[in-house]
Amino acid sequence: MGLQRKLSDLINGCRNMSNTLGELIQLINGQLIGDSSLICLGANPPEDAMAGEITMLDSPSRADLIRASKAIAVITSEPLDDVSIAQIMVTDPPAAFSTAVQYFRPTIQKKALGNGISETARISDSAEIHPTAIIGDGVEIGERTRVFPGVVIMPESVIGDDCTIYPNVTLYEYTQIHDRVVIHAGCTLGANGFGYRQEQGKHIPAAQLGYVKIESDVELGASVTIDRGSYGATTIGEGTKIDNQVMIAHNCKIGRHNLICSQVGIAGSSKTGDYVVLAGQVGLKDHISLGDHTIVGAQAGVMDDCEGNEVYLGSPATPQREQMQIMAVERLLQEMRKELKKHKREMECLKAKLQQDPSNTSVPKENQKVA
Amino acid sequence: MGLQRKLSDLINGCRNMSNTLGELIQLINGQLIGDSSLICLGANPPEDAMAGEITMLDSPSRADLIRASKAIAVITSEPLDDVSIAQIMVTDPPAAFSTAVQYFRPTIQKKALGNGISETARISDSAEIHPTAIIGDGVEIGERTRVFPGVVIMPESVIGDDCTIYPNVTLYEYTQIHDRVVIHAGCTLGANGFGYRQEQGKHIPAAQLGYVKIESDVELGASVTIDRGSYGATTIGEGTKIDNQVMIAHNCKIGRHNLICSQVGIAGSSKTGDYVVLAGQVGLKDHISLGDHTIVGAQAGVMDDCEGNEVYLGSPATPQREQMQIMAVERLLQEMRKELKKHKREMECLKAKLQQDPSNTSVPKENQKVA
Amino acid sequence: MGLQRKLSDLINGCRNMSNTLGELIQLINGQLIGDSSLICLGANPPEDAMAGEITMLDSPSRADLIRASKAIAVITSEPLDDVSIAQIMVTDPPAAFSTAVQYFRPTIQKKALGNGISETARISDSAEIHPTAIIGDGVEIGERTRVFPGVVIMPESVIGDDCTIYPNVTLYEYTQIHDRVVIHAGCTLGANGFGYRQEQGKHIPAAQLGYVKIESDVELGASVTIDRGSYGATTIGEGTKIDNQVMIAHNCKIGRHNLICSQVGIAGSSKTGDYVVLAGQVGLKDHISLGDHTIVGAQAGVMDDCEGNEVYLGSPATPQREQMQIMAVERLLQEMRKELKKHKREMECLKAKLQQDPSNTSVPKENQKVA
Repeated sequence: MGLQRKLSDLINGCRNMSNTLGELIQLINGQLIGDSSLICLGANPPEDAMAGEITMLDSPSRADLIRASKAIAVITSEPLDDVSIAQIMVTDPPAAFSTAVQYFRPTIQKKALGNGISETARISDSAEIHPTAIIGDGVEIGERTRVFPGVVIMPESVIGDDCTIYPNVTLYEYTQIHDRVVIHAGCTLGANGFGYRQEQGKHIPAAQLGYVKIESDVELGASVTIDRGSYGATTIGEGTKIDNQVMIAHNCKIGRHNLICSQVGIAGSSKTGDYVVLAGQVGLKDHISLGDHTIVGAQAGVMDDCEGNEVYLGSPATPQREQMQIMAVERLLQEMRKELKKHKREMECLKAKLQQDPSNTSVPKENQKVA
Repeated sequence: MGLQRKLSDLINGCRNMSNTLGELIQLINGQLIGDSSLICLGANPPEDAMAGEITMLDSPSRADLIRASKAIAVITSEPLDDVSIAQIMVTDPPAAFSTAVQYFRPTIQKKALGNGISETARISDSAEIHPTAIIGDGVEIGERTRVFPGVVIMPESVIGDDCTIYPNVTLYEYTQIHDRVVIHAGCTLGANGFGYRQEQGKHIPAAQLGYVKIESDVELGASVTIDRGSYGATTIGEGTKIDNQVMIAHNCKIGRHNLICSQVGIAGSSKTGDYVVLAGQVGLKDHISLGDHTIVGAQAGVMDDCEGNEVYLGSPATPQREQMQIMAVERLLQEMRKELKKHKREMECLKAKLQQDPSNTSVPKENQKVA
Repeated sequence: MGLQRKLSDLINGCRNMSNTLGELIQLINGQLIGDSSLICLGANPPEDAMAGEITMLDSPSRADLIRASKAIAVITSEPLDDVSIAQIMVTDPPAAFSTAVQYFRPTIQKKALGNGISETARISDSAEIHPTAIIGDGVEIGERTRVFPGVVIMPESVIGDDCTIYPNVTLYEYTQIHDRVVIHAGCTLGANGFGYRQEQGKHIPAAQLGYVKIESDVELGASVTIDRGSYGATTIGEGTKIDNQVMIAHNCKIGRHNLICSQVGIAGSSKTGDYVVLAGQVGLKDHISLGDHTIVGAQAGVMDDCEGNEVYLGSPATPQREQMQIMAVERLLQEMRKELKKHKREMECLKAKLQQDPSNTSVPKENQKVA
C-alpha cells in the first residue's frame, strides 16, 4: 500500500532530496567506505531500517544489530569488521545520524497545518474523511478508511486500507498505520518521548526524531498514548489488541497478537514477543524484554527480562508459583511472628534449665568422677 | 425525559420496525411459546431490559435473572420452568440475541456522521450546542444542556436536561445520559469493550453491541473512559462521582453515590453497591462484586467479592485490619530472619549439648545400670 | 508578559470592578481593620496571592502562611496578632472568600464560548492559531505561540510566549501558562477538583473556583490532566517535565525541575520540592510533601512526607534500603516458614527429652540422694 508508493516517490526524486551516499556524506561531513553512487532512501535505527536506508552504530555492543539490518550503510566512529554494507566514518555518530534523520523526516514547521485536507495529501476515493478532520501535507489515506470528526493527522503520516480512526484522535507527523487498524477516540500517537539530559540544572529534551508504526489488524482502545521513537519507530506488532488508557513509551517494540489490558504502562525501549498478555495496570520497566507467550498478572511490575511461556505476578514481578507462595506465607506472617516469640521463650527456658540445673552441666562430670 | 419520548416513538412505529413477537421470531428463526401479538420495543440483557423488551438466557445458572427481569420474552435454547414471560426457542441463543440487538440498535454505517447538527436530531430550544460540536442522527438533547466545542455525539444517543459536556468528549452511538450529568473534557463513552476470542492464532472481537448509561447527577472527570456493554448497558448509578483518568470496562454496573478516585481501573462485568469508595489507582478484577459501603484503599487490587461495610487494603486486597498486620510484620521481617538464625544456632548448640554430653543421652541408662 | 498587562488592566479599572477594600467589604459584608482606600486586584489563598490581592485564613494553624503571604488583606473570623496587613472580619470566612474569588474570577456563563477567536481575546501577531481552535473571551496569547487544531482555550486564560499547544487540548477558564511551555495532545487543564461533602446521602461539590498555573519551560505529555485549585492555583513549577497520562489533583504545588513519569497520580494538596523524580505509576496520597531531590521508584505509593535526598520504593513507600531488605526477605519467606516448622519439631523433641528423661529432671535429685 502507501508505503511502497512513498518509496517509489523518493526514488523518483519527487521530494528533491540528494539520494546518493556521495551526496549524503557531504551533508553529515563523513568519510565513506563503499559505493558513493548508492541511492539512500531514509535513515532509521538498525532494527527499523528498510532496504535502501542508512543506519547508525551508537555502541560497539550493538554491532550485531548492524549485521542483521537491512540498511545499505552505517554511520560509525570506527571501521567495523564483518560488516558488508557501506560505512560512513564520523566523529560524532549520534549528531551525524540526527542530521540525516532530520533530512529525510524534516521537523514540521509552524504554519504547516492548514484547515481541512491539505492539497498535497492523497486520499483514496473510497475513504471517508469527516469535514472537521485535519489532514496535513503529504498524508496518504488508503481505501475505505474512515476518519471521524476532530481527528488531526499531521503531515507525512500514512494510513492504510480499511482503518477506522474515531473522534478526537491525534496522529503526529510521520505516523505509519497499516491496514484494518481501529483507533478509538482520544488516542495520541507520536508525541515526544520522555527523554531528557540534565545541563546546568535544566532538563534538555533528547532527540525526538522518530515516529510510530502500527501494523495491520491492531486495535487501540480509547485514550491510548504511544510515543514516537528517538530516531526510528515505536512499533505495535500485527494483530495486537490494546485496551483503554494504555501508555507505550518511545522505542518500544510490541510483538504480534499481544493482549495489553487497560492502564498498562510500558517504559522506553522495552520489547515483547508474540502472544504476550499483560493484565490491567501492569507496569514494565524500560529496556526489558518479554519472551513469547509471557503472561503478566494485574498490577504487576516487571523489572527484569522474562523468557516467555510463563506467568508472572506481583511487584516486582515473580514467576506465579513463587509469588503465590510468597502471598500465601504473607498471610501467615502474624502467626509466624507469634511462633517465633514462643520459640524464643521456650529456648530461653531450655537454656536456663540446661545451664542452671546441676544435672546437666556440672553433674555429669561429677557422675563421671563418681563412676 | 427523552427516553420516554423515544419509547413512544417506537410504539408509534415511526422507526418502521416489526414490533410484534410474531414478527421477531421470523427475524431470528425461533419458536414462540406465548402471545405473538405482544409488541417488542428493544433487546437487552436480563438486568438492563426495560418493560416491553426481550432478553436472553445465556447460561442455566442465570435463570433467576430472567425471573427478576422486566422483559416480556426470553430467548432460550430450552424451555424454562417458573418463567411467566413468553419464551422464544432457538438453537443458538447468543447468535439469535445478537441479531435482535442489532435489529433494534443497528450498527452505525459509514457516512453516518455529517457536519454540525443532524437534521434528525432533536435539540431542546434551551440547550446550547457549540457550532463545532457534531450531533449525529436521531440524537436527543434535553433542556438547558450545554455541549462544548469539539464534542462528538454519535447517532441515537440521548442526553437529558441540565447536563454539561465539556470540550473534546466523544459519546459513541446509543449512549444514554440522564439529567444533571457533568462530563469533563476528553472523556470517551461507549468505545468497544476489550473482549476477544482466539481463532487460528488471531484475536477476533466478541460482540460489542451494547451501550453506556449514565444516571442522573453523575460527574465524570477529565479523560474518563467507559466502554459499552457487550449486548446491554455499562451503567454508572445515580449520584456517583468519578475522578480523572478512571477506566470502567464493558458490562460493569457501578452503584449509586460511589466515589471513584483518579486512575482507578475496573475490569469487565464487575459490580459495586451504593456508597462504595475506591481510592486512587485501585484495580478491580473482572466479574467481582463489592457490597454497599465497601471502601478500598489506594493502589489496592481487588481479586474477590467483598461483602460491604468494610475497608480493604493491599494487592491482593485484604480487610484493613489483616493487611495492617501484614504490613506491620513486613517491617519486622529482617529482624525475624535474624532471630530465626539465632534460634537455629542456639538449637544446634542445645542439641549438641544434649547429644554429646553422656549425662543426657547415654549416661542415664548407665546411671540406671549403676543403680 | 501577559500577566503584567492583565494586572495593569485591573488597576486601570477596565473590568469595571470595585477596586478598593472599602468597596470589597460591602460585597462580602465584613468589617475592615485597615485602610479602606487600598486597591484590591484579586483573591487567592495565602500561598498563591500576589501583591495587591486579598486572601483568607481558614484555620488558626495556618496563620504563619498569612504572615508570609504577599496579600494586602486577609479575611478572618477573629483578629490576628502579628499580622501587618489589613484584616476583614466576617462570620464565615470560606463563604466570604468564595464571594470575593467569584467576584474577581466570575464563573463562566453559558453562551460564553463563541466560534473561532473571541473579539475580546488578545493574540500576538506572531502567534499561530489554527482556524479550528476556539479562543474564549479575554484570553491572551503571547509571541510565537502555536495553537494546534481542536484546542479549546476557555475565557480569561493567559498563555505566554513561545508555547506549543498540540491538538485537542482543553484549557478551562483562567488557566495561566507561562513561557516556552509545551502541552501535548489530549491534555485537560483546569477541570473541577474531586472534592465533595455529603449531605442527605448526596455528594455535593466543594468550591471549585481556582485555576491551573504552569510555569515556564514545563512540558506536559499526552493526555495529562491537572485539576484547578479550590480557590487558588494548582501549580507546576518551572522546568518540570511531565510524561503521558499523569494526573495531578487540585491544589497541588509541584516544584521546579521535577521529572514525573507516565501514569503517576498525585492526590489533592500535595507538594513536591525541586528536582523530585517520580517513576512510572507512582501514587501520592493527598496533603503530603516531598523534599527536594526525593526519588520514588515505579509503582510506589507514598503515604507520608519525605524529607528529600532519599530514594523510596514500595507501597507504602519506604526508604530504598529498608524496602530492598523487605523484598529480599520476602523471597526467603517460604524457607523461613520451613525453618520455623523444623525448629518447632526440634523444640518439642528437646522439651520432651528434658522432661521425660529421668536423667534430666528427676534423676539429678536421685543422684544427689544416691550420693
